[in-house]
Amino acid sequence: MEYRRMGATGLQLSALSYGSWVTFHKQVDEGLADELMDIAYDHGINFFDNAEVYALGESERLMGRVLRRKHWDRTSYTVSSKAFFGWRGKANKPNQTGLSRKHLTEACHEALQRLQTDYLDLYFCHRPDKNVPIAEVVQTMNTLIQQGKILYWGTSEWSGVEIMEAHRVAADYRLIGPSVEQPQYNLLEREKVEKEYAMIYKTVGMGTTIWSPLASGLLTGKYNNGIPDGSRLALEGFDWLRDKLIADDKLAKVRALGDVARELGTSQATLAIAWCIRNPNVTTAILGATRKEQLLQNLEALDVLPKLTPEVMQRIDDVMGTAPKMPDF
Amino acid sequence: MEYRRMGATGLQLSALSYGSWVTFHKQVDEGLADELMDIAYDHGINFFDNAEVYALGESERLMGRVLRRKHWDRTSYTVSSKAFFGWRGKANKPNQTGLSRKHLTEACHEALQRLQTDYLDLYFCHRPDKNVPIAEVVQTMNTLIQQGKILYWGTSEWSGVEIMEAHRVAADYRLIGPSVEQPQYNLLEREKVEKEYAMIYKTVGMGTTIWSPLASGLLTGKYNNGIPDGSRLALEGFDWLRDKLIADDKLAKVRALGDVARELGTSQATLAIAWCIRNPNVTTAILGATRKEQLLQNLEALDVLPKLTPEVMQRIDDVMGTAPKMPDF
Amino acid sequence: MEYRRMGATGLQLSALSYGSWVTFHKQVDEGLADELMDIAYDHGINFFDNAEVYALGESERLMGRVLRRKHWDRTSYTVSSKAFFGWRGKANKPNQTGLSRKHLTEACHEALQRLQTDYLDLYFCHRPDKNVPIAEVVQTMNTLIQQGKILYWGTSEWSGVEIMEAHRVAADYRLIGPSVEQPQYNLLEREKVEKEYAMIYKTVGMGTTIWSPLASGLLTGKYNNGIPDGSRLALEGFDWLRDKLIADDKLAKVRALGDVARELGTSQATLAIAWCIRNPNVTTAILGATRKEQLLQNLEALDVLPKLTPEVMQRIDDVMGTAPKMPDF
Amino acid sequence: MEYRRMGATGLQLSALSYGSWVTFHKQVDEGLADELMDIAYDHGINFFDNAEVYALGESERLMGRVLRRKHWDRTSYTVSSKAFFGWRGKANKPNQTGLSRKHLTEACHEALQRLQTDYLDLYFCHRPDKNVPIAEVVQTMNTLIQQGKILYWGTSEWSGVEIMEAHRVAADYRLIGPSVEQPQYNLLEREKVEKEYAMIYKTVGMGTTIWSPLASGLLTGKYNNGIPDGSRLALEGFDWLRDKLIADDKLAKVRALGDVARELGTSQATLAIAWCIRNPNVTTAILGATRKEQLLQNLEALDVLPKLTPEVMQRIDDVMGTAPKMPDF
Repeated sequence: MEYRRMGATGLQLSALSYGSWVTFHKQVDEGLADELMDIAYDHGINFFDNAEVYALGESERLMGRVLRRKHWDRTSYTVSSKAFFGWRGKANKPNQTGLSRKHLTEACHEALQRLQTDYLDLYFCHRPDKNVPIAEVVQTMNTLIQQGKILYWGTSEWSGVEIMEAHRVAADYRLIGPSVEQPQYNLLEREKVEKEYAMIYKTVGMGTTIWSPLASGLLTGKYNNGIPDGSRLALEGFDWLRDKLIADDKLAKVRALGDVARELGTSQATLAIAWCIRNPNVTTAILGATRKEQLLQNLEALDVLPKLTPEVMQRIDDVMGTAPKMPDF
Repeated sequence: MEYRRMGATGLQLSALSYGSWVTFHKQVDEGLADELMDIAYDHGINFFDNAEVYALGESERLMGRVLRRKHWDRTSYTVSSKAFFGWRGKANKPNQTGLSRKHLTEACHEALQRLQTDYLDLYFCHRPDKNVPIAEVVQTMNTLIQQGKILYWGTSEWSGVEIMEAHRVAADYRLIGPSVEQPQYNLLEREKVEKEYAMIYKTVGMGTTIWSPLASGLLTGKYNNGIPDGSRLALEGFDWLRDKLIADDKLAKVRALGDVARELGTSQATLAIAWCIRNPNVTTAILGATRKEQLLQNLEALDVLPKLTPEVMQRIDDVMGTAPKMPDF
Repeated sequence: MEYRRMGATGLQLSALSYGSWVTFHKQVDEGLADELMDIAYDHGINFFDNAEVYALGESERLMGRVLRRKHWDRTSYTVSSKAFFGWRGKANKPNQTGLSRKHLTEACHEALQRLQTDYLDLYFCHRPDKNVPIAEVVQTMNTLIQQGKILYWGTSEWSGVEIMEAHRVAADYRLIGPSVEQPQYNLLEREKVEKEYAMIYKTVGMGTTIWSPLASGLLTGKYNNGIPDGSRLALEGFDWLRDKLIADDKLAKVRALGDVARELGTSQATLAIAWCIRNPNVTTAILGATRKEQLLQNLEALDVLPKLTPEVMQRIDDVMGTAPKMPDF
Repeated sequence: MEYRRMGATGLQLSALSYGSWVTFHKQVDEGLADELMDIAYDHGINFFDNAEVYALGESERLMGRVLRRKHWDRTSYTVSSKAFFGWRGKANKPNQTGLSRKHLTEACHEALQRLQTDYLDLYFCHRPDKNVPIAEVVQTMNTLIQQGKILYWGTSEWSGVEIMEAHRVAADYRLIGPSVEQPQYNLLEREKVEKEYAMIYKTVGMGTTIWSPLASGLLTGKYNNGIPDGSRLALEGFDWLRDKLIADDKLAKVRALGDVARELGTSQATLAIAWCIRNPNVTTAILGATRKEQLLQNLEALDVLPKLTPEVMQRIDDVMGTAPKMPDF
């Protein structure tokens, strides 16, 4: 496994990591989760990603039970949570969602309980909250660090301007700003990570724990012939995603990517993941595999990485046509 | 119920809230308190106001027992305390009152015990303390936030200059300043909230949890024919208030307000409360009802709110003659 | 002459000072101005007050010519200007009034030219400007100090909250905040200076260069029998003031003050001025006398000062009934 | 004319302003420039925009001569310059372009000479400079303000992240950050102004002096039948722009906009300009008219403004299909 400093911090994360997402509890039962996490840990993965909203708290509870059972040295891995959506679904009341000091603080306490740990290594604001001053968010995250409840904090799906506003406030108040962002990033969604955030890596420093390296499975090639029932894209609540994806004529590009994979002697999925971590501004790509063989295949991305020469990367750019147009200035 | 952000914070408070004030323990026994808080919570009230001095600590103890019994989710409501007057009455010794770091810290610990909670959502300086540097107050409150014992802090009955001095110190030391003030505010007492504080809402941001929306009952119209024994105004310790109120010839105005209420098809009390929360700088009006039907009537203010058109508001201004004269510049 | 430090600064101003106000150019011609300023200077007055708007620039031009002619050592006196109203009257265009960086900067340059000096000792914001962030005002005033164009800056007729917002910003940005306020202050108008500003003298420190110590002449007793034509109150543009004053039944109080003056063996005007500078938070009272004998009489206030014992001060409070009610806390 | 505060500053700019761009010297000779600026000033325009690179310095020299001749009160208008591209064209040597302290300082001095003024009201960084730390830019601009050579500074065509990096540095060092951005903005180019910058208006405050309200003339409808020789789009140096515009099938949309204009009883160009200043985050739209009748027609946009009801705005959105998709969070 390759380990990378998370942006400008001293924390080292494995280049591939594992997220329970909504699959835990819904698709992955406790026995399977146990096995998958074993595989991940044994392959050197040291970052397990979670959030309050995943399976409405059950994803964290399940991961908490597995982690407790493993008796892995707490210092040998990192675990995250994220607050914003709440975990009570439609029963959420005011202050049980969002980024107010009250919810961020209470959600942290709840996540610690569910994950059965004393501190989170990473704590994310799962989305921006237009109704809460970013100053309150930065103050609260800094306080949680001071209290020893979290070690680093980050954002997820924030705009570049929002991240910089957090850094402005942090500079202004002399507080610890966000050090990591969790964006979607894959061969079909490059704009934010490659263009919008470009300056942030260099100025204040920022790591990325990217999600959906396979574009919800689209890049594996498995939807080349349509979306089958039972796939994650067909799961309840993801109609919007399906619509969005089908609407685009991305499938043709994805098929062409398959040709490149074959030439490199790997699978399309493995290539797609390797491509993500080829970007030095990606700290880690979070895998969401729900089957053992799938996870093992994903892990082969590390072996494909050396094959991604500048020429191959250029060819992928040509095939996909998704490289963002960079500004003249 | 309508929920409002408390000034420039992300915290949401219900536009109507409930305070135990001196009535808990003195006028309201535990059974009745239990019922009143049920009504409040079921109607969506999420802020319960208290203070160390109310019934000399008994008001907090009673509320603490009720809250423990309810098993309401701690994240679904907010609870406050206030320090300044101490809770030992005439037995208060030096450092058992005021705003020194010693008393603010110890009073916080005592309130947490009485209220049987791990943290206060709001913690108020119940009055300014001319003998304590405001820097010490701001530092202490910030420390209590860092310690996780309180989430937000505020002031009560401070002058605009005193509040701004706290913000100046907070800016100087990069600490968390006060985010809420608890002033008296009602149709007879408008100067501070509408004129003196006007700029503070816009610059540093400030919420208000206003008390005495009914002017100690005067605005209900029940004293139109004199002050009866047994009313709160006649209770021991409130002679000054009675004197003050009677001294003014406010009763005539109050009677005219009754006419407006009748035309709107509501009670005078309900109108007076609705009028308070019509002001966007009011986060919440604290109700102090001591009887069930009274509380239910007060809660109807939310229904009256939409009827307070600019024309009706102007008419109330004309009738009451209490609108502050705003400065030319 | 008695000299006082201006608030928390090291600058010393004479307890009585002289202002040209609108009288220069309108009531006082250049020859008379020359004589009046001679008397003032010879009696130890070291502060001459002015503003861009006084006589639409002519007041500064006249004072500038007189000062140039005198050849007094520039270090022996201080001179002020004030910006806000502009000097073009109805011809003022956007950015030619108010407190934007553009107007404050340009108005300073213009005042330096009119007054024929290289720097202003004091530069005032003549009123608050609700359309300009106070941060911009503080930054600009600080810049003008850095450029050597002004030495100290202050406010005039700002509320306590506005002054404290300036100090908050100054603390935040580490800039030089306002050190002096020019409020109206006299036996009929005590609220702001004695109550609203009370804390500011102690925390950030503030001097006051008070205007209208005689309440536009009302306190001299000359209007006891009605307002004669030719008096300043009858001048064009001051109808509002006359109305305001007559509306109040202040004349009776003023007459009673005359009795106290007689007992102390002084004139009513002299007593009223002495009373102002008896307040230690008053740095200087600006005299606006337009006749020589009047100015000489005003200057006798320094001799009356020692006669203002606590008992006499109490008696004046009783007679006038204008002492502000101080807050309980 | 309508005047607007420039973002969070106190400066007031006319909602329509006039820019010499490359037209001065190239298309507009000194006599015509004289007439055009007379029309602009007489209609209340108080902002004249310029840059070192426009016509390689000649645009500023020409405007400087015209302004000197007019003897307009310097306080009655504002004038800008911009540095980045240098004014020596291909002869530019290192440090004669870009945003280093050396070039920003020297370019400012040169612009003051060419424009024959003591200070610029606005000074822009004409583009971001990836080779200069933004801290150096902010420090230099702040220094120029302290020196009295400029009053406000801004950026042009910077990304939201770059602007926020400037504010982060300004907060960190307690310097004056940028207060205005000059972006392209028109019915065909909305993304940056409406989406990318959205948060900046609210947090740190930002005005915009938008350029190309007519999309280089495309929105006037004059290219509906192809691009004629002699039009600005055909001028040397603008091939890229022509290509870019033609490449897009924007002409159809533009023709549909013409229908809306006819219904409102105005010209397509006037409507397009009015649409720009309908956005409250636009401080001023810079007109670049090169003929008198054209300028007079543009100025009619102020009369069209009231006709842009929410319904009309919606219809324009529908017709153009250029409204940016706002983020879900």
